[in-house]
Amino acid sequence: MGNFKGHALPGTFFIIMGIWWTIKCILKYAFKKHKRTSYLGSKALFHRIEIFEGIVLIGMAITGMLGEQFIPGGPHLALYDYKEGQWVELLSWHHFTMYFFFGLLGVANILCFIISSLPTSLTKLMLSNGLFVEAFVLYNHTHGREMLDIFVHQLLVLAVFVAGLIAFLELFIRTNITVELLRTSFILLQGSWFWQIGFVLYPPSGAPAWDAMDHDNIMFLTICFCWHYALNIVVVGMVYAFVTWLVKSRLQRFCPSEVGLLKNAEREQESEEEM
Amino acid sequence: MGNFKGHALPGTFFIIMGIWWTIKCILKYAFKKHKRTSYLGSKALFHRIEIFEGIVLIGMAITGMLGEQFIPGGPHLALYDYKEGQWVELLSWHHFTMYFFFGLLGVANILCFIISSLPTSLTKLMLSNGLFVEAFVLYNHTHGREMLDIFVHQLLVLAVFVAGLIAFLELFIRTNITVELLRTSFILLQGSWFWQIGFVLYPPSGAPAWDAMDHDNIMFLTICFCWHYALNIVVVGMVYAFVTWLVKSRLQRFCPSEVGLLKNAEREQESEEEM
Amino acid sequence: MGNFKGHALPGTFFIIMGIWWTIKCILKYAFKKHKRTSYLGSKALFHRIEIFEGIVLIGMAITGMLGEQFIPGGPHLALYDYKEGQWVELLSWHHFTMYFFFGLLGVANILCFIISSLPTSLTKLMLSNGLFVEAFVLYNHTHGREMLDIFVHQLLVLAVFVAGLIAFLELFIRTNITVELLRTSFILLQGSWFWQIGFVLYPPSGAPAWDAMDHDNIMFLTICFCWHYALNIVVVGMVYAFVTWLVKSRLQRFCPSEVGLLKNAEREQESEEEM
Amino acid sequence: MGNFKGHALPGTFFIIMGIWWTIKCILKYAFKKHKRTSYLGSKALFHRIEIFEGIVLIGMAITGMLGEQFIPGGPHLALYDYKEGQWVELLSWHHFTMYFFFGLLGVANILCFIISSLPTSLTKLMLSNGLFVEAFVLYNHTHGREMLDIFVHQLLVLAVFVAGLIAFLELFIRTNITVELLRTSFILLQGSWFWQIGFVLYPPSGAPAWDAMDHDNIMFLTICFCWHYALNIVVVGMVYAFVTWLVKSRLQRFCPSEVGLLKNAEREQESEEEM
Repeated sequence: MGNFKGHALPGTFFIIMGIWWTIKCILKYAFKKHKRTSYLGSKALFHRIEIFEGIVLIGMAITGMLGEQFIPGGPHLALYDYKEGQWVELLSWHHFTMYFFFGLLGVANILCFIISSLPTSLTKLMLSNGLFVEAFVLYNHTHGREMLDIFVHQLLVLAVFVAGLIAFLELFIRTNITVELLRTSFILLQGSWFWQIGFVLYPPSGAPAWDAMDHDNIMFLTICFCWHYALNIVVVGMVYAFVTWLVKSRLQRFCPSEVGLLKNAEREQESEEEM
Repeated sequence: MGNFKGHALPGTFFIIMGIWWTIKCILKYAFKKHKRTSYLGSKALFHRIEIFEGIVLIGMAITGMLGEQFIPGGPHLALYDYKEGQWVELLSWHHFTMYFFFGLLGVANILCFIISSLPTSLTKLMLSNGLFVEAFVLYNHTHGREMLDIFVHQLLVLAVFVAGLIAFLELFIRTNITVELLRTSFILLQGSWFWQIGFVLYPPSGAPAWDAMDHDNIMFLTICFCWHYALNIVVVGMVYAFVTWLVKSRLQRFCPSEVGLLKNAEREQESEEEM
Repeated sequence: MGNFKGHALPGTFFIIMGIWWTIKCILKYAFKKHKRTSYLGSKALFHRIEIFEGIVLIGMAITGMLGEQFIPGGPHLALYDYKEGQWVELLSWHHFTMYFFFGLLGVANILCFIISSLPTSLTKLMLSNGLFVEAFVLYNHTHGREMLDIFVHQLLVLAVFVAGLIAFLELFIRTNITVELLRTSFILLQGSWFWQIGFVLYPPSGAPAWDAMDHDNIMFLTICFCWHYALNIVVVGMVYAFVTWLVKSRLQRFCPSEVGLLKNAEREQESEEEM
Repeated sequence: MGNFKGHALPGTFFIIMGIWWTIKCILKYAFKKHKRTSYLGSKALFHRIEIFEGIVLIGMAITGMLGEQFIPGGPHLALYDYKEGQWVELLSWHHFTMYFFFGLLGVANILCFIISSLPTSLTKLMLSNGLFVEAFVLYNHTHGREMLDIFVHQLLVLAVFVAGLIAFLELFIRTNITVELLRTSFILLQGSWFWQIGFVLYPPSGAPAWDAMDHDNIMFLTICFCWHYALNIVVVGMVYAFVTWLVKSRLQRFCPSEVGLLKNAEREQESEEEM
């Protein structure tokens, strides 16, 4: 996985998942606001969506796991080479482990919505687990590498750990949409930072990698990380605006008068509470 | 305790306690769901179970404390050797201290359910205390040892500390079954990791210990820790499935119709809340 | 920004914002207490104040960003000098990034109170984001500088991080006025510490900078930080006393009898709750 | 303060405060249980007690501050010696700062119960502040000393920081008696550990100080810290038993029948909730 594609792939995966979770979260919030009009229909819909999401996650995880094992130069399921007396391709096994825990998240997603007696907080727990395990493995991933390499991976660990921490807090405390969108924005950050790592360590243009011992590069990557974050906040904001507008225009077409009345009543009530 | 048995023993102890706490926690959850049918009987039962658990814990703690003191080469209750001018077997005293705090947990368990005016959160506090003290002592346990030895003990400290942290959070915030099972899975992880440490540092097959300066060993133990965790999650899941099935089949045999009706009513109510 | 003015300016900015947030927070608390008499009027007032605050914040942020770019010796919007093959004035870009995130806070402030469907917790989130980003950038700001320089910046990071942490906790947990005033006192601390850094590293009297390798200077700055904090607590206390007295005397002039009665009734109720 | 008495004095102070806060906390809990019988009387009593506590705290703080300044060899209010060009007795100024913040706690205590409009959470905040400042100053107190000296002070910082953290959490979350007793037990631990530091660094028997470079001393002090903690838990438990017994026997003498009935009713209700 030590090349540009190996970082662009998981980056793309996390960007897709981040945008999808952002959309789902805003949709749920918008539907909850217009609860009385279309509650029952949307609930059954969300159950089916969750199961579909689980299947996609498992598919992605299995693809990643098989890919790590059977690419040329991969370990081909061998863990220890008794002839040579050494471990086989431990970095690939690291990636394998991370994919495996996201596969578990998919399994939990499916189980939770098939077996109704399971608590739904289980999916949140498995998400938090998956992210913490990823942060833990990435943290122990760069023993003996160069300064710049370690630094960009540490920033990645930071983004992953914060996302995991927020998911963990959501287990304990009933949260609001702001916190959920914060979590998805950190997952987006993780995705876009994977791309950045690819560009820094394995420039696709064929140019040489950045000078690993230059302090200025680290100074730049510090603010570059913040700019990625700012960009992701803006993306989440645009998705929010688009989805909210879509839900409003859609609902108004079907039942214009009733929704309008309800909305006004609710808005007053809410703004009172929020003051 | 610097041998294979000395790590397998506490490992076995924590695996047994972890599985037992998992079962107890799931049983309570299942009984709470079927509250109306068998509430009073189960409550008296749980009181007796807690006291029995306390006695077992005290028994285990005393066995461990006496064992640490009076094994050949142990300190035999001597703390300082005035002749030689040095401390006597401090590592054994370390283990002694850890056992002592788990003994306190047992005492708190018994006191809480005999004296009804004591708050039940006391047992949770003592559990958290016991785990934090264990983490603290283990953290200061490996001064001056080799890299691999320190690393495996640090991972143990991580598992113990997280379990203690979750127990501490449970003191403050009313939690759900997911969080409690997370805690028991970390106690299981601690138990199985004790076994792993035994295999790494004192291979029972008589083979030489692992190379303590090889970075690859650390890379492997990082993911090995995650695999232990994944295994323990699966074990907790299987215990959950088994206990839930047992309670259901048992209750249905005695009062089939009523439970069925209640269950359906509750399920709807819950899924509504959880949405 | 490596001079006295460059530290006095943001220091003044944070002192003004800290005092203003303290006043706003106490005003809200005082008005809430006398809710029945002047609730509706104050609410519309606060909405307009929030929007004005947002505009001021954006103005300050843009001034700071432009200033950092176009001062003599600034980067003039150039990020990388391809001729020399090096980054241009990264420290200025660091400051630029911090200002940008406070500008985002201003934007969120305005959006939240124009578009009523947005959750108000968004402003708290952006405040927490702004502070965390500032702490993160400052933490990576002093690579390769001298001990004293690093130490005073670390204390600054501590003050900023604690303020961000409290704002973050406010997202999750419904807080009281004590916690909000704690946050504003840390923002004041940040402001006055900026001034202190200016005096330590670039004495305006023209005297030489403090000896960067003297341990005694660090020992003194440790307690100096605490004295700043004590001073800021006293300032917040005095603002509290003044604002409370103002609101009371103002309200009593308009409706003396009614308020007096209400106050007595409320006071009893509250002291009962607080016991 | 670099002698045995200089550590025994604050140690005694914290032990007295710890025991007093333990008693107050248990008394409040016991009175709350028997609320209906003697509520109003106890409330006025507690108000007067809080004010008295504040006066005692201020007295202790002023004694400590003056003592630090005017002992032979103290700084006598001089901060910087312009002749010699160096700071004067910074360690004494460190202690001065810590005492000052506990004085602020006393002031907050008095203000809160004289001015009824102040939130009572203010005292908790000032307690948390005082402890955090103490931990912060102690952490920066031992630059350039020997290993053993640093280690025993680090353990002190740990005890102080945990006590401060619990007080801080109590600001946010409505707590129960278990958490409050945990806090007082950490304040007791701090007090008894001050004594231990005195014995380790300045043995009062005139014997030489412990060998500062011996790893075994650190290994022993690790478990010694745990034993102190265990002892303090037992002390808190004994105080709890004694105070509860006292309140019960006192109340039963005055109104035996009514209390008995109430108690039974309450006990059932509680145990139901706690299950």
